[in-house]
Amino acid sequence: MRVMIYEGAGGVDIIHMRDVPTPVPGAEHIRVRVHATGLNRADLLQRRGNYPAPAGWPANIPGMEYAGVVDVLGPGSSQWKVGDGVMGLVGGGAHAEMVVVHEAEAIAIPAGMGFTDAAAIPEAFLTAFDALSTRAHITRGDRVLIHAVGSGIGTAATQVARWLGASCVLGTSRTQSKLDRTLAYGLDVAINTANTPFREQVNDPVNVILDVLGGSAFADNLAILAPLGRLILLGFLTGSATTADLSPVLRKRLTVVGTVMRTRSHEERVELVQEFAAKVLPAFSEKSLRPVVGAAFPMSELGRAHELMERDEAFGKIILNWD
Amino acid sequence: MRVMIYEGAGGVDIIHMRDVPTPVPGAEHIRVRVHATGLNRADLLQRRGNYPAPAGWPANIPGMEYAGVVDVLGPGSSQWKVGDGVMGLVGGGAHAEMVVVHEAEAIAIPAGMGFTDAAAIPEAFLTAFDALSTRAHITRGDRVLIHAVGSGIGTAATQVARWLGASCVLGTSRTQSKLDRTLAYGLDVAINTANTPFREQVNDPVNVILDVLGGSAFADNLAILAPLGRLILLGFLTGSATTADLSPVLRKRLTVVGTVMRTRSHEERVELVQEFAAKVLPAFSEKSLRPVVGAAFPMSELGRAHELMERDEAFGKIILNWD
Repeated sequence: MRVMIYEGAGGVDIIHMRDVPTPVPGAEHIRVRVHATGLNRADLLQRRGNYPAPAGWPANIPGMEYAGVVDVLGPGSSQWKVGDGVMGLVGGGAHAEMVVVHEAEAIAIPAGMGFTDAAAIPEAFLTAFDALSTRAHITRGDRVLIHAVGSGIGTAATQVARWLGASCVLGTSRTQSKLDRTLAYGLDVAINTANTPFREQVNDPVNVILDVLGGSAFADNLAILAPLGRLILLGFLTGSATTADLSPVLRKRLTVVGTVMRTRSHEERVELVQEFAAKVLPAFSEKSLRPVVGAAFPMSELGRAHELMERDEAFGKIILNWD
Repeated sequence: MRVMIYEGAGGVDIIHMRDVPTPVPGAEHIRVRVHATGLNRADLLQRRGNYPAPAGWPANIPGMEYAGVVDVLGPGSSQWKVGDGVMGLVGGGAHAEMVVVHEAEAIAIPAGMGFTDAAAIPEAFLTAFDALSTRAHITRGDRVLIHAVGSGIGTAATQVARWLGASCVLGTSRTQSKLDRTLAYGLDVAINTANTPFREQVNDPVNVILDVLGGSAFADNLAILAPLGRLILLGFLTGSATTADLSPVLRKRLTVVGTVMRTRSHEERVELVQEFAAKVLPAFSEKSLRPVVGAAFPMSELGRAHELMERDEAFGKIILNWD
């Protein structure tokens, strides 16, 4: 099978398409023929050598999510049949023609949805649902602020927050066009941070913040949270070093939670996937939630896709398709 | 009735005993004749003008916990009868001969326990139970680190952590004698921080940390937490300013929770008191949990009690008794 491989670490010139032996699924696993797959910032970090794949996953084949068709069932695998459309998360190796996953970690593609759209769901919507529901315990009427709201996770979280009952969704971006486009997905308050810090533009406290910025935003995030507010840390786009006064954490009884998908155990992945399939998946069929594909490339142009993400110019998800 | 009053803000010389009108309990409230009451660091902060009482509580009568006898029932009050022994938390005003509280916020004094011991329970044990159980979700087998372990909260938390199933309780103090005395309450690993930072003395990661130190300990706390660890912030003895790398929060999926008792709503207090009465109170009768009274003073010597706490020389709780 063909795969994308990082040969060394560095710029996009280390990305190559290669042929490798096609994997055979073990017990309770399935092999999926990948039609489309999302690009994530973690793939870029891994390319630069800063984010090795967790143990048990391919070390130099990137890709953390897939959408495709069940191709082969491993021994004892009974949940799917060959030909079913499935999508899901992996610890690595999804930028390949085939991926082997545990059957209980796969999610059915909603009826009528194409592979390109389906590939925009797993990382963005599982992360957004997990962060807002399980980590932030969002309740009806909460005010929710989402940083980098035009990103894949941002556009997913905007919709999920609304769908979970948020009374007001605020979003930040340095790019006005991204803010404008996110309004169509349920954003209420667009905060352009190109020239003015978000803290100066949030007049009423918020109950929940999803943050991918990190250290530079930490103190201001604490400042704008309401009593019993929750700050969910999902990334460190601006670095992880911070200087802050922690007194709002105590005075307002705040909770700060860090969360990542990639390092989770099989048991945790299965638990999340099952909850997602039961509660969230129907909302895609009802069009309450919509995948947001900002750009799609053939897999052979993975390097160009990296460059687009590095320029911060993409809206929503960047998807790679196998021909 | 006699009360202790802060006349202005500053040193112990602003503390005076005065006579004020005896309060009359309103609907669903009771008046309690206070026999003993604990001293807390918040009382010292308030004396210095740094921690005003929350709205609805006496502004210049300190004291946040009491043990005594029900003296008068307000209209519609049915939970207690005159003469019952009760203890509990208030937002202020407990350093007085009488205190008026909502009947649902009072807790029965365990049979056979004296008022001095009972007064050592509310702030220390409610805080420790709430922090370890409700905030940190301690589970059997967790390793728990408690800073300033010789304090009122520290000695209570050591016992509560053990009682909730912690496999190992580690405690820090700069005073060896306090560490030695805490061993009798269930401390497993005594960490003397007089000359060596605790981070260098914790070899295996911990699952839960109760911290009263604050900013200076934040980065080291994050460093020694295990994946999915919980850091509960209860105070800022060393100040609230911090410089830290937040990357452990994300990588290890940590949770940081700030919590204080004083500003909680009536509904929150009642919920905690009811859970405490049902689950924790029986453990005092069974001697699984023991109040830790390090020093007791007559109320007229409240200033001396302040000075003892400010010198950091007390072990466990400092209690004031009315004659």
